Amino acid sequence: MRIALDAMGGDYAPKNTVEGAVLALKEYPYIEKLFLVGDAVATGNELKRLDFKDARIEIFHASEVVSMKESAAKAVRHKKDASICRAVDLVKNGSAHAVVSAGHTGAAVVACVLKLRTLKGIDRPAIACLLPTQNKVFVLIDGGANPDSNPENLVQFAIMGCVFSAHVLGYNNPSVALMSIGEEDMRGNDVTKEAFKLLKASGLNFRGNIEGHDLFIKPAEVVVCDGFTGNVVLKTTEAVAQAILSWLKRELFRNPVRKLGAKLAEGAFKSIRKKTNYEEYGGVPLLGVNGVCIIAHGASSPVAVKNAIRAATESIKQEINPKILRAVQSYNEKFSAAPPPVQ
Amino acid sequence: MRIALDAMGGDYAPKNTVEGAVLALKEYPYIEKLFLVGDAVATGNELKRLDFKDARIEIFHASEVVSMKESAAKAVRHKKDASICRAVDLVKNGSAHAVVSAGHTGAAVVACVLKLRTLKGIDRPAIACLLPTQNKVFVLIDGGANPDSNPENLVQFAIMGCVFSAHVLGYNNPSVALMSIGEEDMRGNDVTKEAFKLLKASGLNFRGNIEGHDLFIKPAEVVVCDGFTGNVVLKTTEAVAQAILSWLKRELFRNPVRKLGAKLAEGAFKSIRKKTNYEEYGGVPLLGVNGVCIIAHGASSPVAVKNAIRAATESIKQEINPKILRAVQSYNEKFSAAPPPVQ
Repeated sequence: MRIALDAMGGDYAPKNTVEGAVLALKEYPYIEKLFLVGDAVATGNELKRLDFKDARIEIFHASEVVSMKESAAKAVRHKKDASICRAVDLVKNGSAHAVVSAGHTGAAVVACVLKLRTLKGIDRPAIACLLPTQNKVFVLIDGGANPDSNPENLVQFAIMGCVFSAHVLGYNNPSVALMSIGEEDMRGNDVTKEAFKLLKASGLNFRGNIEGHDLFIKPAEVVVCDGFTGNVVLKTTEAVAQAILSWLKRELFRNPVRKLGAKLAEGAFKSIRKKTNYEEYGGVPLLGVNGVCIIAHGASSPVAVKNAIRAATESIKQEINPKILRAVQSYNEKFSAAPPPVQ
Repeated sequence: MRIALDAMGGDYAPKNTVEGAVLALKEYPYIEKLFLVGDAVATGNELKRLDFKDARIEIFHASEVVSMKESAAKAVRHKKDASICRAVDLVKNGSAHAVVSAGHTGAAVVACVLKLRTLKGIDRPAIACLLPTQNKVFVLIDGGANPDSNPENLVQFAIMGCVFSAHVLGYNNPSVALMSIGEEDMRGNDVTKEAFKLLKASGLNFRGNIEGHDLFIKPAEVVVCDGFTGNVVLKTTEAVAQAILSWLKRELFRNPVRKLGAKLAEGAFKSIRKKTNYEEYGGVPLLGVNGVCIIAHGASSPVAVKNAIRAATESIKQEINPKILRAVQSYNEKFSAAPPPVQ
């Protein structure tokens, strides 16, 4: 398997990306080639610092970087030599099977859509995120690729989420819920109310609306929402988890008895931190584009980058795209009002 | 002060609402009158059960109830004798200064808008919620009154949030942030991008976008969003807090050493539970209608109902509506493109 890593993407790039690449190559012998796409001097210096040599690593120079402050669409259009653009180019021309980026998510989405195009029947791609419950994980889709989504987009997200849930997580006929602000059919905003009707008729295992309260208690296996809502949910979830654990820490250090208690209960805290730590997942797939793209957290540590690369190798193995194509085609055949082609 | 309580509203009504009313009357001597609006037999039985007699309490019979499964608009139009409708009527005709409901939020919003009307210059009302950080609280507005909001609505929410923040929470020239999915100006969906421009020009102390990550770490004093997003944030926040504390509990009971540790650190857990417990706030105001309306949590306990009634008395004291009127008028005078009236 051949991977193109956007070496300049992320808050701590190229340091953490290069370190992550090195960890991945050490751990995963089945990676045949890993392109470090970005400034050749900066990435080369990181490799030197780590004193790492491996024939499978190749620095692929790209002179520009998309910063977090830029508009995704403008940046991808004007910065042809940006690391994320070049990394996607490597997938487009067949040099790599997958691209991994911890940089500007919007830029990765735009570059993939423009260069790789969406799969037939999919209008917009979506990010499939994994969130934990007590005993399992569920898919939240879209995690932020499309801030403005229409009801048809949401149905396509549901179909992609189901394919991912069934073939990557192993859930049989996964249940689908629509993120909303009440369980009843008529609750929501204009987009979710329309999407509700489409999902109900879709033939998917749709169980209705889900609201935030139930997200971690009785979630569906696939939770569908627009990218704005999904991104807000993800970041709020992370923020609340961090806030509670840090408030707890402060409270635990208020007196020596509590401190002793905390010491004795240490294992419990570690187990929760692990559960709520994005590092474990590393990266999440952008589904619906004609190629494999893994989006990693902007603040990715080297371990998170390594795990994002592992996620890319898993996505390549799963061959999810032909399955999405079949699922969306079967949905469209069932519901398309298009007249038969003229003979 | 005279309060109309929707005695039939809430998951545990009329039991918890009547118990909450009794607690409030015992604790707050300045309440002159408390109307228990709802089924006279059911509420009367609750009062009998509690063996509570007080000249200030008055059962105001209403024969219907809006259930959670109903469409808010339809229910308010057709059920003239619903408890929430009658409770709002009491505010409209001057019998009560404020209405408190733990029932169907949408129905309370619709009833207030139809019967009390919005304040001049405010197109849609909004729910101002309080969220905790390490050391203080901030206002999230709208918490769910308007699932679909336009950019102008968001500016009005910001103005109302600032008045509330300044006069109820005591923040001087409160900072305002727009809930979005990136800090940069151009991030967001179509509505937030347009609202960003309006807020930047508004003369409010606008500091830009805020994303979920920073919500509890470096929040603005007023965070603005549409009601769909706000409701998702609130419910997700509550869900994550509960999930983490319950996972932690389970981990802490895995072995006796951890159990002992948890016992020693008990105070810390209690302090966090208190911080994340909605009961403390009781209820939040629906701002922008011509009257005082407090929305309480659907699952309100008697203590939460009591605190919601206290919140209503505080809102009455603060006289927030004339201040909102002045603030929105001053904004409109600054930005209105309307021609001067013909003499």
